[in-house]
Amino acid sequence: MNDMRQMTALGRQIEDRSFAIIDSEVGAHAFAADEWQVVRRVIHATADFEFARLMRFSPGAVAAGIAALRGGSTVLVDVKMISAGLNEDRLAAYGCRVVSYISDDDVIAAARAANTTRAIEAIRKARRLGVLDGAVVAIGNAPTALLELARLVSEEGARPALIVGVPVGFVSAAESKEAIAALDAPSIVARGRKGGSPIAVAIIHALLLLSAAAGGGTT
Amino acid sequence: MNDMRQMTALGRQIEDRSFAIIDSEVGAHAFAADEWQVVRRVIHATADFEFARLMRFSPGAVAAGIAALRGGSTVLVDVKMISAGLNEDRLAAYGCRVVSYISDDDVIAAARAANTTRAIEAIRKARRLGVLDGAVVAIGNAPTALLELARLVSEEGARPALIVGVPVGFVSAAESKEAIAALDAPSIVARGRKGGSPIAVAIIHALLLLSAAAGGGTT
Repeated sequence: MNDMRQMTALGRQIEDRSFAIIDSEVGAHAFAADEWQVVRRVIHATADFEFARLMRFSPGAVAAGIAALRGGSTVLVDVKMISAGLNEDRLAAYGCRVVSYISDDDVIAAARAANTTRAIEAIRKARRLGVLDGAVVAIGNAPTALLELARLVSEEGARPALIVGVPVGFVSAAESKEAIAALDAPSIVARGRKGGSPIAVAIIHALLLLSAAAGGGTT
Repeated sequence: MNDMRQMTALGRQIEDRSFAIIDSEVGAHAFAADEWQVVRRVIHATADFEFARLMRFSPGAVAAGIAALRGGSTVLVDVKMISAGLNEDRLAAYGCRVVSYISDDDVIAAARAANTTRAIEAIRKARRLGVLDGAVVAIGNAPTALLELARLVSEEGARPALIVGVPVGFVSAAESKEAIAALDAPSIVARGRKGGSPIAVAIIHALLLLSAAAGGGTT
């Protein structure tokens, strides 16, 4: 899961066969070609074809993500599992850095003091530090973080380059993703309860592969 | 996802509500009480109730996992996303260490030379180092690693304390989990294609909470 492409020929054969199976089983869908590259990688990461019904792209979201990554954007994530899964070499080749504040002492202290969540305070810290604008923001776990991000965009003018909103959960997850989808901002979300860090990783890896295919960068 | 219990009161409330929703929606199942603690945490991590049909425990698997963790067993994982998601403080309190070999240079070189996969070579390295016996082995990504582990148990007498076999995939994933379930060894698997690192993390965190509830350790 922490490779976009397998390192060995056997690994690559397994991946190619997996994608062929996904293509043969998915049935009809209305995704554009570039969007489908993202969705199929999410299905590859989960073996869950329901994501073909759940994934929702704002107009131009994939292009916005590619442009941001090729421009060396910061990738802000809510949990360490996403950073651990991301291909650091691919990101570094574009000058992208991955940042997460959820384990910072000041974030933990602020969440306890205000009885919020660490995820909310981590997004607020990113805003304070000026990291949100122009960033690819990937939320795989915390609906509270995504709701706060929606508020920062709609009320305070934050301008992330792309929001990858795929928290999993039973409380507020679906609502948080609808709030993001309703924004006038580039976003890729998984509607409903499902999501998680592997979905966030799969989306960013798909965007990195599309970035490489767009030429001029790493291959 | 990298906490078993949320740090703030709000976080805990959200988690409690989530588990109440899961309990109210899951319907009838045949899991023992301790097994259900594991399955519901997997559903919590995925929002996918299909896991209530897919999870399969060998007799005594939960007790074997608790005993191993409380005894300070090594936790061997196939990918960094699992280590990143695990609660290090909880594990350290029992003296458990988390190890992974998939990014080791010698593992990568061996996989390329033999045209196997990094995951296979990582399991072989664990065997050579004597790490497999008595370990909790959690495979969330690589069916090839799980197949090699099944072979090491059935043909070479490897004796892990518990096998958590939850790779996701379209090629060999289902078969690899059936191979583990057929062994005379403690195992927890998710049948079929579905799985992934959050499922592995959820299972180990559930076992850690059950370990704490069993008394005498951390709380």
